This record gives sequence, structure tokens and C-alpha cells, in this order.
Amino acid sequence: MNRIILIIITGLFSQFATSQQALSEKYNLMPWPQEIQENNSKFNINESLTITILGNDSEGRVQKASTKFLRRLADRTGVFIDTGFPIENKNAAIKIDFQSVSDLTIHQDESYTLHIKSDEVLIQAKTDVGALRALETLLQLTTHTNLGNYFPGVTIQDTPRFVWRGLMIDVARHFQPVAVIKRNLDAMASVKLNVFHWHLTDDQGFRVASKTYPKLQELASDGLYYTHAQIKDVVQYASDLGIRVIPEFDVPGHASALLTAYPELGSKDNYTYSIERYAGVFDPTLNPIKEETYVFLENLFTEIAPLFPDEYFHIGGDENEGKHWTENKEIEKFKKKHQLKTNHDLQTFFNIRLEKILKKLDKKLMGWDEIMTPTMPTTAVIHSWRGTNEGLKSSTLIEAAKKGYNTVLSNGYYIDRMLSVQHHYSVDPIADAVLTKEERKRILGAETTMWSELVTPLTIDSRIWPRTAAIAERYWSAKEITDIDNMLHRLEKVSLHLEELGITHIRNKDVILRNMTKGKDISSLITLSNICEPLKVYSRNKGGTEYKSFSPFTLFADACVVDAKDAVVFNKNTTQFLEDNNSNTSSKIKEYLMKWTENHEAFMQISKNPILQSLVPLSKNLAEVSQLLHTSFQTKKITEAEFDQCKNYIKQLKEPFADTEVVIVDALQKLLLYCKAKYLVK
Amino acid sequence: MNRIILIIITGLFSQFATSQQALSEKYNLMPWPQEIQENNSKFNINESLTITILGNDSEGRVQKASTKFLRRLADRTGVFIDTGFPIENKNAAIKIDFQSVSDLTIHQDESYTLHIKSDEVLIQAKTDVGALRALETLLQLTTHTNLGNYFPGVTIQDTPRFVWRGLMIDVARHFQPVAVIKRNLDAMASVKLNVFHWHLTDDQGFRVASKTYPKLQELASDGLYYTHAQIKDVVQYASDLGIRVIPEFDVPGHASALLTAYPELGSKDNYTYSIERYAGVFDPTLNPIKEETYVFLENLFTEIAPLFPDEYFHIGGDENEGKHWTENKEIEKFKKKHQLKTNHDLQTFFNIRLEKILKKLDKKLMGWDEIMTPTMPTTAVIHSWRGTNEGLKSSTLIEAAKKGYNTVLSNGYYIDRMLSVQHHYSVDPIADAVLTKEERKRILGAETTMWSELVTPLTIDSRIWPRTAAIAERYWSAKEITDIDNMLHRLEKVSLHLEELGITHIRNKDVILRNMTKGKDISSLITLSNICEPLKVYSRNKGGTEYKSFSPFTLFADACVVDAKDAVVFNKNTTQFLEDNNSNTSSKIKEYLMKWTENHEAFMQISKNPILQSLVPLSKNLAEVSQLLHTSFQTKKITEAEFDQCKNYIKQLKEPFADTEVVIVDALQKLLLYCKAKYLVK
Repeated sequence: MNRIILIIITGLFSQFATSQQALSEKYNLMPWPQEIQENNSKFNINESLTITILGNDSEGRVQKASTKFLRRLADRTGVFIDTGFPIENKNAAIKIDFQSVSDLTIHQDESYTLHIKSDEVLIQAKTDVGALRALETLLQLTTHTNLGNYFPGVTIQDTPRFVWRGLMIDVARHFQPVAVIKRNLDAMASVKLNVFHWHLTDDQGFRVASKTYPKLQELASDGLYYTHAQIKDVVQYASDLGIRVIPEFDVPGHASALLTAYPELGSKDNYTYSIERYAGVFDPTLNPIKEETYVFLENLFTEIAPLFPDEYFHIGGDENEGKHWTENKEIEKFKKKHQLKTNHDLQTFFNIRLEKILKKLDKKLMGWDEIMTPTMPTTAVIHSWRGTNEGLKSSTLIEAAKKGYNTVLSNGYYIDRMLSVQHHYSVDPIADAVLTKEERKRILGAETTMWSELVTPLTIDSRIWPRTAAIAERYWSAKEITDIDNMLHRLEKVSLHLEELGITHIRNKDVILRNMTKGKDISSLITLSNICEPLKVYSRNKGGTEYKSFSPFTLFADACVVDAKDAVVFNKNTTQFLEDNNSNTSSKIKEYLMKWTENHEAFMQISKNPILQSLVPLSKNLAEVSQLLHTSFQTKKITEAEFDQCKNYIKQLKEPFADTEVVIVDALQKLLLYCKAKYLVK
Repeated sequence: MNRIILIIITGLFSQFATSQQALSEKYNLMPWPQEIQENNSKFNINESLTITILGNDSEGRVQKASTKFLRRLADRTGVFIDTGFPIENKNAAIKIDFQSVSDLTIHQDESYTLHIKSDEVLIQAKTDVGALRALETLLQLTTHTNLGNYFPGVTIQDTPRFVWRGLMIDVARHFQPVAVIKRNLDAMASVKLNVFHWHLTDDQGFRVASKTYPKLQELASDGLYYTHAQIKDVVQYASDLGIRVIPEFDVPGHASALLTAYPELGSKDNYTYSIERYAGVFDPTLNPIKEETYVFLENLFTEIAPLFPDEYFHIGGDENEGKHWTENKEIEKFKKKHQLKTNHDLQTFFNIRLEKILKKLDKKLMGWDEIMTPTMPTTAVIHSWRGTNEGLKSSTLIEAAKKGYNTVLSNGYYIDRMLSVQHHYSVDPIADAVLTKEERKRILGAETTMWSELVTPLTIDSRIWPRTAAIAERYWSAKEITDIDNMLHRLEKVSLHLEELGITHIRNKDVILRNMTKGKDISSLITLSNICEPLKVYSRNKGGTEYKSFSPFTLFADACVVDAKDAVVFNKNTTQFLEDNNSNTSSKIKEYLMKWTENHEAFMQISKNPILQSLVPLSKNLAEVSQLLHTSFQTKKITEAEFDQCKNYIKQLKEPFADTEVVIVDALQKLLLYCKAKYLVK
């Protein structure tokens, strides 16, 4: 690269980064837009606010979105907006203009511009869906002084980095009623996600009714499934929000539920299939050498595919270990006859037959990355889920793009691993990969995956949100938007606003805690829960056999969330204090230590029931460490005996308590070493 | 009456009352059962708990209810129950036996007996619905020690006092999505209510889709209506819980929405009908002299009635003031011709035609008490809503029963009046009325009414619950169960358990407050909200024009609830202190006064936004009064000047703040007078 150009680019970039930083401290926008300019004006939000739609809103999306916008704005600000619906008057203050109605495909245009002046808000977009994205940006800009609410004067030009920005929800492991799906669709739209991937079937349940094969709902769902009317309702609801719906019917593995209803399609004769109650990877698999299997799938998909207007149809295809295939002599014979060397080859044979069925239905096949085999046509979309965690050198995304497949990334966005928002936010779909223009184009985007082995309708929102909002920024915003502290600052407000859409991530915590204390004061339990996080990376429910699908998920671990509130602050303060010995920071640390010391007595007041008993050692050890450290800081002394005691308490805090980990334990350890270094009394 | 018998009865009754009192302090049952006996054993709840169904569960109600029972028991206790579904083994620990499947009519039997011993729980009922009622009782009996959970050994024999125990939800003024209805059905079943009265149409919206008259959903609903699939889903859901669904289509008044879609059916030509945005009683009325009106209603009801299997069909019929009838010359002519002297007579003419239409559809007509006119056939059910508040000598219930109508009471159970639970609990449907056996039989029961002018899905639960649980006891339990303190004690636990069914009455308060503080600490606002209640008896939204249906209901008043928590305790303590001058009680009072004094500073920290500004005088006056009173109690002194100051602050606190009233103001006033009497410094 020419050196002068490089310098200019670097200069531009650092200027960009600085101004973004300055602006993003002012505006709680998420995802951060591509361009934002200020104009020093204010648009006051008052009773006379009106909206008009200038485009031809033939799908009614903008009508619905702007009506909802008015409700949300009124509810958020308390302003009694007098005109509760869009009006047909070109003098309305907020004007929404767009050129056409989106077809909701991967080719749709979601770009928009938003101009806010003192007397006018103008939204311009290529499509109605672009206008929806602009309305969400506008709502996020709502600001207040003591006296009133306003939109700050800005001009925003915005367009997404990736065209496929998804959230997958697994409704098989734990069924999620329509209300859960709808509120999550609302939340998705609020952070500009545009693909809802509906994981509808798995070993633990087949969640779609069928007229052709009614035993699916009768025997494979425990009565927990969606009717066709409900599916249509959800798909329409999503479409109204500019969200595409990709259904997933996971075959040939993950088929315990399906085979409970139709065992004759299984790979093992005389096997008693039953709905799986545990979590894990299981053996029941469709029989790929029986013609009936394909007849079944063709009939089923012919019935169900029309419910989903999107051109993509996800067939799963993951985690088939082929044990039942190998154990079936007929299947082994078939493999030899057709020169299919491995079970993987046999699965490709199966997938290619499936691809033909789907083609007849005008659907393109999408599947998890196991389907990417040499003979798989490049019309398939590869959903990359495996990467370094699964023993690969990198995610399969780049490989797929280079091999000519359209591809979508989920590796790195498995939020059920219970890792910090910072972790997921730092995963860039493309990272440093060197790609041709064509290859880059094949990377459609990414999907956050919410597997539901350990979540119920009560807790699912607190696992999805707010982390998914930050990840949505990764999918939409420029690659350079990576500042963690800034993201965390904005995320706090975004998290709060998710409540307005019915998301229960904050409110349901107290519900669980109230149930645990049987109505007694929950504050000591809140204190504990604010430094504990659910066990990570599948170490809760190890081996999949601690919890059954109907086990209680109303436990301490279910009230705890990733990025535990007090832990985040305490850990940050500790790091800072150890760097600069600042007395302000040490005061904050001491405040926490005092709080945790005193908390134990309050906790012991309420601990008189079996669920709380298991937390007594946690509460006690925490209080002991905190008290010792606090005293040491106050007296500027610590004896060897105290040090050893404290070390021992910390050691115990390192163990899991009630399926959670105490995430301040490293900070406590560092503080202890600091005390030893500074204050040890010989 | 023979004197000896009287003494025996009195003796039995007081014994009954005493033992009920003793038992009801131990068991948090609501509604309180007819008979309960203890047997000193315990049934331990552990992983091996199993359930079996002995009756012929052909409707599947018991299967569903007992599966849910297992989930709720596991979630409540944290016990990992190993067998998540009823089993077909007669040795199961919990045996559910019943003789037949209920037809869900007013003749159904809901009685049951429940025997709990150390190794067995036996439920016996005449019908499956009786078994469901028993399961709710069993779940309410769940008790724990430090070490484990158990059902206490008791034998309960139970049967309801009234066969019709309802909750009406108005989904017209503010639409309530299916999810809101379902969670409230669950809650209803948990306190043994058995009628869901669905007020589906009103001036503000027509909430049912029609194929015959599609303009109803297109023009009369703002897009907020139920599809037929959704209605069927709700009716089935209710049936599974042993709850009947009574639809209400309110005619000929309350018709603004309907006439917006079909103005040709209106009583006034060239009138522009539109969906009503305000609350109140409005003029638009169906035209009772047009044949088209009856054709429309017959077609519509013929389409819609089959969705509702119940034999009763509510046609509203209330609050038609007949203004548009009087203003229409043709209608006046018609009245003369048919010797209908008043508009009321004309409405009876209309109702009788309606009754015939409904008869063809195998439905019995039910209507609000205005329909009770001399020519109305006694096959109609009279829904008594008017009473002393509406200028009558008593409710119309007894009159209806005496006139030969079956009748249901709602007067006294209008929970949207925002009166205390104590108030509603004290209303007995029959009270002291002297009735023949036949007349008594005609009093089917009662319905709590939730009119929705001022509630949204966010707040509706906190208006319905927990008061409706106590009212449900009034409908089910013996007339003698009237002890308020005892009821309040049990209600506290019942209220908590409603959360397990998804009821949001507790959790959504904080959601509103977080929105008000924009994420800042809400504790000072909680303190204020715990002594304020929404304005009562329709003085919020006076005249119906302060709020439109789309105005914000995310205000301070919406976070406040009836029976404000701290106010209840403070008022009780004050009453007690003024009686007995007890120093314990005075300490508690002083604690509150201190809390309210200190609260103001915390509140001022967060008050920097327009919604909170309106609460500053409330917070300030409260702090001033509290500080003055606190000082007076501490110093045992008060000057004339201080007294006058304090009196003045109290006067200001008597005014409404932000649509709420400060419900400790009388107590504060009494304490001030006490201080003056005791401590005045001359």
C-alpha cells in the first residue's frame, strides 16, 4: 500500500474513533450508527407531536411501527401525546418517507437517514424496513432535562455491516410460548436484528403441529407445541418488525422426539424411543436408507414449509454421531453398495436428497457446518457453529466462504455458555481473514444462539438480554466500534429500555428470590446474587444428567446472571486500585467489603428453608474474607495467621456454590496478596 | 326458635369460629375450605413423589393439572421430582380419584375431599374439576422446615357456597393480549374461581374478528382483536382449568366502535361514528327499529356463538341513555305505534328480539340489571351491578331473585374503584336478605369486575390481584369466614404464590419506577409509593377526559396499588398506639417518621426529570410533617407555631398528588393532635 494513503487513512480513522467516542458518550445508541453529525438544535417532545407516513405503506409495517412508537414514547416520557396514530397531514412533525416495501430477503435494503431539527424530524429510507430501523434509532435518542423531553438535533446516516443478523431460540429443550417469542421479537427489532431462527425440534420435543402426522404433537411434544395459526401469527408479527423467520427442523439426528411418534423411521429396529428428558447428544437418528423417511419428510415439509415464507429452511444436520447407523447391518450394507465410506458420507447422501425435496418447495437448504462435505452443492447455506472450542483451528465460516457457500456465523455467539458480554462483543465475524470481494459477500452475517437446556420462560430473557444487544452492535455497526467501556455504558440504558417491550430480564430475578425466601426480605440474597454467576461453558448440568427438562429452574443459579452487577464494579475497582493505590477507589472497595461482612447476619435471618441452606457456606466464607480484608485495610495490619485463614476462605469460595461461581474471588485474592505485601505483621 | 337449640347452635358456631381461627393461622389456604381436620402426620415432599390418576380423565384435565402441579411444586420447593408426569401405578403416593367429567355448567359439582397421611395423599371428587380444586388446595398446603418440605396431615372436605364465581375482564377499553388472559385464568383457578366473563366489545373497541362482518376488526379494533383461533385457544385453556367462559357483546349501547364499522346500524343518520378514545357513557346506539340490526346481530352471533360452548351469552344492555333514540323521529314514531312509552321499554323490545335469536343458538341471555323490566322473560340471567352507589336502596340482586330470575352479583365487587381488600371482602352477596329456598337457589353467585379504562397489560394484574383472591374466598367459603386480620395474613402468602403463575402484580411496580427514574436508584420512590394509592371511586380520570386510551399508564399512580404496604402497617400501628400508648408501637411509628424524613434527600437526588418533578411537593411535605412529628415525640414538646406548620403540611398532603392520595394522612393528623394534647408548650 502506498505509504501516504496509509497515513491519511490512519489519520481519518483515529479522528473517526475520537469523535465516535465523544458522541457515544452522549447518545445511548445501540447498535452505533455508521455516521452521526450534530446540529445544535433540539426537537421538543410534547403533546402536539404528530407523525405522518409519506411512503406507500402497503404492508402496514410503518403504520404499526409508528403507532407503537407513539405508545412507547408516551410511556417512556409520560407525555400525553394527543394524537395517538399517524396522520395524513404533510405538516406533521415527524415525517417518514420510503420508496418501497421490503421483500424481506437477504437482498433487502435497511439503510436510512434521520434528520432531526428543532421543528422537524425527517426519516428517509429505501424501504419500509429501513424506516423501522430509523424509528428505533429515534426512540433511543429520547433525552430529557428537568423540564422536558427532546430529541437532540442530529443527522444520522446508517446501514448495516451484515445483512443477516440473527437470534436463534431453541424451543425444543424448553418450550417457549408465543408470548415469549413475541416479546423477544420486539426486543430484537429494537436493536435492529432481522433474523429469528426458530429451533423447533430436537430430542426433547417436536414443537410444530402436523395434520399429516398428528402423532408428532400427540406423542412427541408433551402437549407443548405451536399450532399453524400460532406460527402464522408469529411469522406475521416478525414480518411487521422487518424480521425474517427461519425454521429449523433438525434431522437426521436430534430425533428422539420425532421417533417417539414414528419409530418406524428410526435406524434401529425394536428400539424404544422416548422423548429425551436429559441434555446432551443422543443416538436416535432417522433411517437414511428407507424410502419412507423421505416420503415422510417430503410430506411434512410440504405441509409446513408454506407457513414460513422465507426462502431459507434450516435442516439442522448437526451432531449425528451415527452410532445407530453403524449398529444397523442393512445400513452398513447400503453404505458399501453406494460407496459411502463413512457415516458422514451417508449423511451427505441424506442431505442431498433433502436439498432436492426443499428445492421442489422453493426453499434453499441451510444447515449446521457438519453438512459441508465435498459433494454438498454450494446452494446450501453453511451455519458455522464449530471453532476452536470444538478442536478446530478456527471457525468454519471462512472455510465455507472460500469453498463457495453462503455462510452465517454462530461460533463465538453461544450465549448459553454464560460468558461475559465483553467476550462475545470482542468476536468479530471476519476478524483478520483475508477474503476476496466475492468471498466477503458470501459471509451473510451471524446469529446469536440461545440453547434452552437450562432456561425456562421465567429465565430465558435474562440469558438473552442485555448481552444480545451488544452482539447486535457487532453485527450492524462498523468493525471499528470496539470500545468495551463505551459499549457497557450505552448497554446500561438499552437494557433498561428493553423492559418497555416486556423483556423480563431484570424483574424476574426478584421473583425467583422471593420464591426462595418465601416472601421474606430478599435484600441479602440480592447482595449474594450480585457477585455470583451461573457456572460457565456447560459446567452447570455436567454430562446433561443433573437436570431433567422438568427439574426446577427457580434456583439461586437461575436468579444469577452473567456480568454480575456488583462483581463487575468491584473487580474494576480492584484492578484500578492495584495500579494506582487511589484512596477513592479503596473507599469503594472497603464499602463492598463492609456490605458483604454485614450481609451474613441478614442472610442468616432468612435462611431457614432448604433451598437457602446450601448458600450458608457461601455467605459465611464471603463475610469472613471481607471482614479480614476490611480490618487489614483499616488497621494496615495482617498477621500470618489471618493471611492463612483468609487464604483458606478464598479457597473455599473458589468452589462452585449452588451451581454458581463467585466471580470476585480473583479480586479478593489479589487484595489479600496486596495486604500481605503491605501490611504483614511479622 | 327454641331457646335450647339456639344455645347449641351458638355454641357450635363459636367453637367452629375458634378452631377455624386457630387452623387458619397455620395454613395459608384461600379460599378457606368448609371443613378441615388435623391428623398429626406429615407427607414428605421429595424426589420420589409420584401421582396417579384413578378416574377416567377423558377430557385430559387432570392429566394437565397434575403435570402442572408437579412443575409448580418443584419450582416452589426446589425439589428435583424424578417423575415429571402422572404415572399409571396405583401405588403412587398421590392418588386422584373422581367419578365423572364435569360438563362445565352451573350444575357441575366441584366438591372434593383431600386426605393427607404420612405415606399417601388421596383426592376424591365427584368430577374432574373437583379434583382440580383439590390439587390447588394441596399445593397451598406446601410447608417447610429448615430441612425439607412437606404436606401437613389433614383431612379436608370442601364444596363451594356459590356455583358462579367469576372474574370479568374488560378487553375493550384497553386490549389485553392472550398471554394476559391466560395468566389470569391460571390465577383464577388457583383460588377456585370458575367463570371468566370476557367483556369483548365497547365504545373503545370491538375485539373479536368476524368473517361475516370483517369491518369489525378492520375499522373497529385499531388492529387489537382476537382471532377465532385465539378465542378457541383461550376457551380450551379455561376449560382445562375448570373455568367457564361467558362472552359479552354489549348492545344496544356502548356501540361506538361497532358503529364506526357499520354506521348504517346506528340510531342517528349522517352521524360520524368513531372509536372512542375517552372513558364514560356515550350516545352511539344500535337502531332497534331497523330489521337490518337484527339480521346483523343474528348473523354475527350465529358465527361467533359456537366459539363459546357455555350456555350463557351476555348481551350487556347497560347504560343506554337513549339520547340518539329520542333524537330520531322514526324511532319516536315506532315507539308510539308499538305503545313503547319509554326508551327503556324500547330496549326491552330489543332485548326480547335478541333473546329469541340467542334461543335459536341454544344460548340463554344474560345482561346487566337494566334489562330487568316487567316484560323480560325470567329465562334471562340478571347481572346485578347497581346498588347504593348508583342511588338504589340496595343491589338489584335480591329483587331479581324474588322476581324469579337467576342472578349474579357484581355490585360491591368493582375492583376498578380502587377500594381496599377489606371493603370488598366485607360485602356478602346475600347479607341479611330473607329468602325462600327457591329464591336463594336463584342467586348463582358473583363476579369481580375489572373495567380497563385505566389499566394496561403492564398494570392490570396489580389491579386484579391480590384483592380478587380474598373476594374469591367470599364466593367459595362459608358466610362465617369474615375475620379480616386472618384473611390479610393468609393473603400475603397467596399473593406471593400468584407470581409462580406469571402474575406480574409485584414485579411490574419496579419496572414502572425504573422507567420513571431512568435507571437511577428507585428506593426513595418505592418509599413514596408504599404510602400512596391511586385515586379512588373514579376520581382519577374525572369526567373521563384526562386520559385517552393511548395516554401513558406508566406514571406514579400506575406503580401505586390499593392497600399500600407501609400505609397499612403505619395506620394500624397508629390506631393501636392511640388506644394503648404502647412504647413498642411508638417505636415503629417513629421508625416510619424517620424513614420519610430521610427519604426526601434521596428523592431529590433522582428527581431531575419531568415525571418526578410533580412528586417533589409530596416528598417535601411528607418529610416536613414526619420530621416535626418525630421531633415532637423525641422531645415531648410541640409549639403552637410547629403545630400550625405541621397542620399546614398535612393539609397539603390531603390534596391529590400525581393522581394518588396519601393514605397515611389521617393517621398523621391524629398523631399531630396527640402531640398537641400531650406535648404543647404554651
